[in-house]
Amino acid sequence: MNPNAPETATLLMSCPDQKGLVAKVAQFLYQHGANIVHADHHVDREAGTFFMRVEWEQEGFGLGSEELRREFGEYVAPLAMEWTLHYSTQIPRIAIFVSKQDHCLMDLLWRYKAGEFRAEIPLLISNHMEYGMVAREYGMDFRYFPITPETKHSQESKEIALLREAEIDLVVLARYMQILSPQIVQAFPRRIINIHHSFLPAFIGSNPYRKAYERGVKLVGATSHYVTEDLDQGPIIDQDVVRVSHRDTLDDLIRKGRDLEKQVLARAVRAHLLHNVLCYANKTVVFG
Amino acid sequence: MNPNAPETATLLMSCPDQKGLVAKVAQFLYQHGANIVHADHHVDREAGTFFMRVEWEQEGFGLGSEELRREFGEYVAPLAMEWTLHYSTQIPRIAIFVSKQDHCLMDLLWRYKAGEFRAEIPLLISNHMEYGMVAREYGMDFRYFPITPETKHSQESKEIALLREAEIDLVVLARYMQILSPQIVQAFPRRIINIHHSFLPAFIGSNPYRKAYERGVKLVGATSHYVTEDLDQGPIIDQDVVRVSHRDTLDDLIRKGRDLEKQVLARAVRAHLLHNVLCYANKTVVFG
Amino acid sequence: MNPNAPETATLLMSCPDQKGLVAKVAQFLYQHGANIVHADHHVDREAGTFFMRVEWEQEGFGLGSEELRREFGEYVAPLAMEWTLHYSTQIPRIAIFVSKQDHCLMDLLWRYKAGEFRAEIPLLISNHMEYGMVAREYGMDFRYFPITPETKHSQESKEIALLREAEIDLVVLARYMQILSPQIVQAFPRRIINIHHSFLPAFIGSNPYRKAYERGVKLVGATSHYVTEDLDQGPIIDQDVVRVSHRDTLDDLIRKGRDLEKQVLARAVRAHLLHNVLCYANKTVVFG
Amino acid sequence: MNPNAPETATLLMSCPDQKGLVAKVAQFLYQHGANIVHADHHVDREAGTFFMRVEWEQEGFGLGSEELRREFGEYVAPLAMEWTLHYSTQIPRIAIFVSKQDHCLMDLLWRYKAGEFRAEIPLLISNHMEYGMVAREYGMDFRYFPITPETKHSQESKEIALLREAEIDLVVLARYMQILSPQIVQAFPRRIINIHHSFLPAFIGSNPYRKAYERGVKLVGATSHYVTEDLDQGPIIDQDVVRVSHRDTLDDLIRKGRDLEKQVLARAVRAHLLHNVLCYANKTVVFG
Repeated sequence: MNPNAPETATLLMSCPDQKGLVAKVAQFLYQHGANIVHADHHVDREAGTFFMRVEWEQEGFGLGSEELRREFGEYVAPLAMEWTLHYSTQIPRIAIFVSKQDHCLMDLLWRYKAGEFRAEIPLLISNHMEYGMVAREYGMDFRYFPITPETKHSQESKEIALLREAEIDLVVLARYMQILSPQIVQAFPRRIINIHHSFLPAFIGSNPYRKAYERGVKLVGATSHYVTEDLDQGPIIDQDVVRVSHRDTLDDLIRKGRDLEKQVLARAVRAHLLHNVLCYANKTVVFG
Repeated sequence: MNPNAPETATLLMSCPDQKGLVAKVAQFLYQHGANIVHADHHVDREAGTFFMRVEWEQEGFGLGSEELRREFGEYVAPLAMEWTLHYSTQIPRIAIFVSKQDHCLMDLLWRYKAGEFRAEIPLLISNHMEYGMVAREYGMDFRYFPITPETKHSQESKEIALLREAEIDLVVLARYMQILSPQIVQAFPRRIINIHHSFLPAFIGSNPYRKAYERGVKLVGATSHYVTEDLDQGPIIDQDVVRVSHRDTLDDLIRKGRDLEKQVLARAVRAHLLHNVLCYANKTVVFG
Repeated sequence: MNPNAPETATLLMSCPDQKGLVAKVAQFLYQHGANIVHADHHVDREAGTFFMRVEWEQEGFGLGSEELRREFGEYVAPLAMEWTLHYSTQIPRIAIFVSKQDHCLMDLLWRYKAGEFRAEIPLLISNHMEYGMVAREYGMDFRYFPITPETKHSQESKEIALLREAEIDLVVLARYMQILSPQIVQAFPRRIINIHHSFLPAFIGSNPYRKAYERGVKLVGATSHYVTEDLDQGPIIDQDVVRVSHRDTLDDLIRKGRDLEKQVLARAVRAHLLHNVLCYANKTVVFG
Repeated sequence: MNPNAPETATLLMSCPDQKGLVAKVAQFLYQHGANIVHADHHVDREAGTFFMRVEWEQEGFGLGSEELRREFGEYVAPLAMEWTLHYSTQIPRIAIFVSKQDHCLMDLLWRYKAGEFRAEIPLLISNHMEYGMVAREYGMDFRYFPITPETKHSQESKEIALLREAEIDLVVLARYMQILSPQIVQAFPRRIINIHHSFLPAFIGSNPYRKAYERGVKLVGATSHYVTEDLDQGPIIDQDVVRVSHRDTLDDLIRKGRDLEKQVLARAVRAHLLHNVLCYANKTVVFG
């Protein structure tokens, strides 16, 4: 993130499609002195739904947060619009969940330090003890939550409490090898991003590289998605693949896949943090 | 192209950036009853230039072509805006130039027949005699213009006259192996698309596959661009690459490259026909 | 294919792995004066299986086809080796099956004419009447076999008889929209190549683009595979993907997918014709 | 690297092409009891040159290193063959050179720790002071060599001495922003790998992302190559590209390019360490 970038506000909107929506939104903002820096919209004609993202500079804009929420809410009330408002000065807070494999974790942290994410990462949660030192090094609080079938529910309850206490906006599962139960998924709807190590919907569930190897595919993939209650079925944010051949062993698939996982997860996290992602019908619109 | 798609009008605009341009354009169209189906814009902050493409349904729109040109022209006069207006009912007319290799030609014609281009292709021009039959089969007029250094100028003058007489909007060089001289380039500015068989700016000029083979590159590419007076230097519309290895002979590079050339040229032609391309500073903005 | 390429013979071999197999094969050929132009081998350590492809020039080689088969057979008898022998002078004969969509058909025929396949294509079979003219143009025999549930078995029996009579070595399903029943699959084991319009094993069966659209994937794929009795489950020869976004309608997915299908099918056919493909455990080794 | 992988020896060979070379090499090894685990060869017909890589298990092989060198040397003396011999038990020693940007450095070190490289990295050299701590953390010796035009020659002389003293086999320039002068290049022929942040031969020299941005390319690339005395002209080991659009600023190109640089450099280093790379005519053969 450019530290000299001007402060901006972003509206994410969706509603049933009708005439004049782009003009209506642009007009509202312009009347209040907005200098729009990005505007993007999309209509899904099959679903009859309109999506829009608009970002404008705070400087010179005539409405404060409260006023904006009230006036814009009234303005779009007849449109059955769902909308969220985000200020660039509100820095989202991320908690990373990790298990034993650290490639996504270390990649996220490098990017964080390099300024690729406009976010803070105050919290690292793991069902293993390995990464306490790493957490300290990056100034994160490390919390160890070992999970057994018996303790899972109570541990997750504690995790939810901790995430709330730490005012976490986004949970990133960086190859976290536990399936989250509905209580935690429901507590953070559309705010948990997972990386699955296959080209979904192929190879749902465990051991996707093993399954890919046995099926003899010629490309392996990785998929980042929002977590829902259905395992590996949530809205897909990004995907990518890499070519493999008969020469690649299962270990080679895993090694090549790691590079994919890192990139696909990082792109999804970045898109989410830039408020570029809207969900509907178990799909995503990813602007930008 | 969907034959049932509604009739639309499209404005392509560029001007020095300032506040409120999106709202200004959207507001103008909305006041006249436009149902905007696509709107996209871009600001090049380094260049300080604003670009916008907006497409709306003709049905219910209150201004005819003449009125629209006059009223919009007056409306944006203070903005130093350059703009062009396109109606989906005006079907662009394409002339294809070809030499001996027919892969791009046959690919374009297959796509044309399959409805991938909203265009007519009434004219095929070649410096060889091979493709007269093909032209007849597709209902194109075939014109043979052999070129020698001595006849080049006079032949090109005849070509220009023919292109004008046939009311050609877009010239597509489908592996046409003659360099066009300035007279013909100047007659059709930003309206001649070429496919170059390398990843420009690498391997400008003749025999790019040979040069790529000798340099030992691990990817070969293809580039579609608008033709300008500087050989292979015009604004790039699209590019792509394919992996090669030491096992690939020069013939393999040529064979693999053909697939690239077909796709990259077709994508550029389609983007141009959809009025998705704006040029500036020897670059392109490609919406969509 | 380079018409001036020297005549060659190719051995494709697989057997339980053991020491010295490469040397053993190379030694046999060298003793008989072979000039090896390509040799490639692979060991699947998990399966304990050895695979080898070796191609040598006919000129100067001391054994005729009969002798070679007999002597090599005896030489490798202790190894439990399966092997096939192919001469570049034996031109494989292809039958293409097509339904209503012609993009793969026309692409294959263009490549055939351009010399990308060392093969003859004497026969076009369809359950529709459209492509009789195309067949004539390319010197193929066109046979129309309309299929209904009632006639399917008898029509396929006639197709098998026709394929045998025409001495067909390879059947290519170029978007043929009928599922072949076991009788025809069993009659041409590992000699029927299909193109499926998804990244298998995702979206098996009908309407894969519709399914991909509804799942909201960010890449669509195509897969070429040998046909087995299990629908879309045969050994994969090649796969590829192309990026899509929320902006792409179902029609866009279909259009972008066509380009993939053409290329992935053509690469598989070419690999098969070059005797680069070995099957085992429902997978392929693809040399080259 | 699999720690349980058996110990192996690898021969890399090149010589003028002639009949029977594969058999000749395989026969030699087989006679001495080699169990070949990988063999690959290539003939550049245009250059008339034969290349081969063969790797076999040490266990059961009848020749020690000295004997092997002597006997194989005599065996291939009539062939004008150049060859090198590598044992998997000889762990190559790497020195990394870095300047201010650390993405390639940190990526290499993560992969090193994860076992992707069969190598030791005992030495980090920089013209800046930043990465002393990192070096300590990974158990590397850190040496600071500030470079000015006046001190360059003497500093490089010291670097050469240090590299020799530390018995360095491979120098990796991980975005080292100084041009090496001939003395150091000549001291480590084919043993210095650089990552250049463009798709060579496009955008040679400094500021390739800026040049790519200004040219308006639609893909940016990265290239790993052996360093020769001609800047950015050495034999290319690997290349890759990523798609960019008019929406990408120069900073976006740099950010997207970093991911490429990391992967392309790591793949080249890995290929070199696996003894998969042979050089000739300013190109590479990359087996595997």
